[in-house]
Amino acid sequence: MKIGLALYGLGTVGSGLVEVLRRRECAVREAYGIQLGLEHIVVRDASRPRDLELDGTILGTDLGTPIWDPAVSIVVELMGGKSSEWVVSNALCNRKSVVTADKALIAEHGRELEALARANGATLRYEPSVAGAIPILNALRGPLVGNRVRAIAGVLNGTTNYILTRMAGDHLSLEDALAEAQARGYAEADPTADISGLDSARKLVILSRHAFGHWVKLEQVPVKGITDVTPEHLAHAAMHGGTVKLLGRARQLPDGTVEMSVEPSVVPASDPLGQVRNETNAVVLETDLAGPLVFMGAGAGGLPTASAVYADVVDTALQLTSLAPRKG
Amino acid sequence: MKIGLALYGLGTVGSGLVEVLRRRECAVREAYGIQLGLEHIVVRDASRPRDLELDGTILGTDLGTPIWDPAVSIVVELMGGKSSEWVVSNALCNRKSVVTADKALIAEHGRELEALARANGATLRYEPSVAGAIPILNALRGPLVGNRVRAIAGVLNGTTNYILTRMAGDHLSLEDALAEAQARGYAEADPTADISGLDSARKLVILSRHAFGHWVKLEQVPVKGITDVTPEHLAHAAMHGGTVKLLGRARQLPDGTVEMSVEPSVVPASDPLGQVRNETNAVVLETDLAGPLVFMGAGAGGLPTASAVYADVVDTALQLTSLAPRKG
Repeated sequence: MKIGLALYGLGTVGSGLVEVLRRRECAVREAYGIQLGLEHIVVRDASRPRDLELDGTILGTDLGTPIWDPAVSIVVELMGGKSSEWVVSNALCNRKSVVTADKALIAEHGRELEALARANGATLRYEPSVAGAIPILNALRGPLVGNRVRAIAGVLNGTTNYILTRMAGDHLSLEDALAEAQARGYAEADPTADISGLDSARKLVILSRHAFGHWVKLEQVPVKGITDVTPEHLAHAAMHGGTVKLLGRARQLPDGTVEMSVEPSVVPASDPLGQVRNETNAVVLETDLAGPLVFMGAGAGGLPTASAVYADVVDTALQLTSLAPRKG
Repeated sequence: MKIGLALYGLGTVGSGLVEVLRRRECAVREAYGIQLGLEHIVVRDASRPRDLELDGTILGTDLGTPIWDPAVSIVVELMGGKSSEWVVSNALCNRKSVVTADKALIAEHGRELEALARANGATLRYEPSVAGAIPILNALRGPLVGNRVRAIAGVLNGTTNYILTRMAGDHLSLEDALAEAQARGYAEADPTADISGLDSARKLVILSRHAFGHWVKLEQVPVKGITDVTPEHLAHAAMHGGTVKLLGRARQLPDGTVEMSVEPSVVPASDPLGQVRNETNAVVLETDLAGPLVFMGAGAGGLPTASAVYADVVDTALQLTSLAPRKG
């Protein structure tokens, strides 16, 4: 069965996805009998030269065209920014299923967008929005279905973890470590959302939705970034066998409310979260049956994120070709 | 929709499953519209007093009865031992789907049993047979569908890892550490399969099936257990910043063949696998897109294993109530 895709955004993740779709075409056709066809790619600037074999795919800049195309069943939103809310909500209203990596959008509008998806018989998936390649939303949705999650703790932002690792290891100042992270491509030109803890808070809100079953408003999460962390703090923590990590934490209280925070925290160096170095992400779940579970992996990057996008696309395609009750 | 289950075995995992089925009844009915009804429990000795509300479930000792009962759709095999091959193959021949934790059975007969399941339009799931609560087969089947796995390394046996941890931390002899593991319930009365590495090899064969796409014969895995590991080896490794772990390793060579081994190995203490303490299990996957991914958690125990059994049961029930193409 052929499933038509429209891809918005052709940056590192989008290009990675195009590559994975090509590489895995035969394997997915053989395993599941589905053929994923890339009908449209939407970019901001179509005149920019790109190393891309289009092979029948329509490259354009109009946001609406793919949404009205009946050949498209799944919209993959990787453009982010101001247009993504329009794209995702209009796609869902037109009964297209959506996969997105836009954590800002999902953290702020996830509740309404999920309702919109349900009302239109579409699915909305966003595994790539949290912790890159780590299949943590999938784990909460499927394999941990028998569990109650008691608490989550995570290193959810690669940029700040890289900075803290460099500050601790080589006694760099925050400014120097940030400049290095930018030079290596781990930090954005404008790293405000990372440094301030906002990016971690967004991911924590999304994780909590799947761990505890409901959306918490982003404004309700107390957030403290790493701006005030000094090399002296790190040296002091190290003297006591610890290290400083920007941790996102959430736990469900006996009355059902969820207590959340993002802040720099001293973690024993021997703890799984104390071991997370450089731009790696990690999530620890405390569950009632399975006990504690640790997941570690690449939190960002073109191919790791494309890996998560692709898995969501295949999962959505399998849903579309079945009458299966939707998970989560 | 009601889905009938038959449970073989009421040890710690089986009792755990009965508990989870009860706890999660409403949540699963609400989320997926399915009702999991326990029609039969098969035990070796029905006269043994048990703290169990039967609530309409038939408790018996006959292996065949549940298999011929048209009300049963899913057979959960947790009895292990000599009868499990008979139960699993006859259940599949009678078009019942099967969930089992029996790693000996799957490692040795997985290929034939999967063929039997396909031929009969049934599913065969065995997530609880590898690394307890860690959803590693699920990760390989679903979220990593876009990836090629290059290599696996894992601490796959909780008993031996507990023994090595105690030998390293408190300089116990292997005999004393084993006696302690037995007293704490981490080791079987007959720990031969653990100590010899056979248990790890079985799990590695099952992991490799999902990582590399085909079954390797158990006899083809070179296996070395921990019998010859001494406190001196551990002290020597520690002096060089390392620790000794019983590692299962597999990697795919460029020609497609899979190279596997189980043996005590020195691991840097700072590595994720060097951090795995006591009876915890861990698996590291090297993948082409997602990069390295680490999964850590409880490798055994009643509730952790029941968590994995329950997830497989729900997943199977969702397959049965849909026309979804089967995953893996």
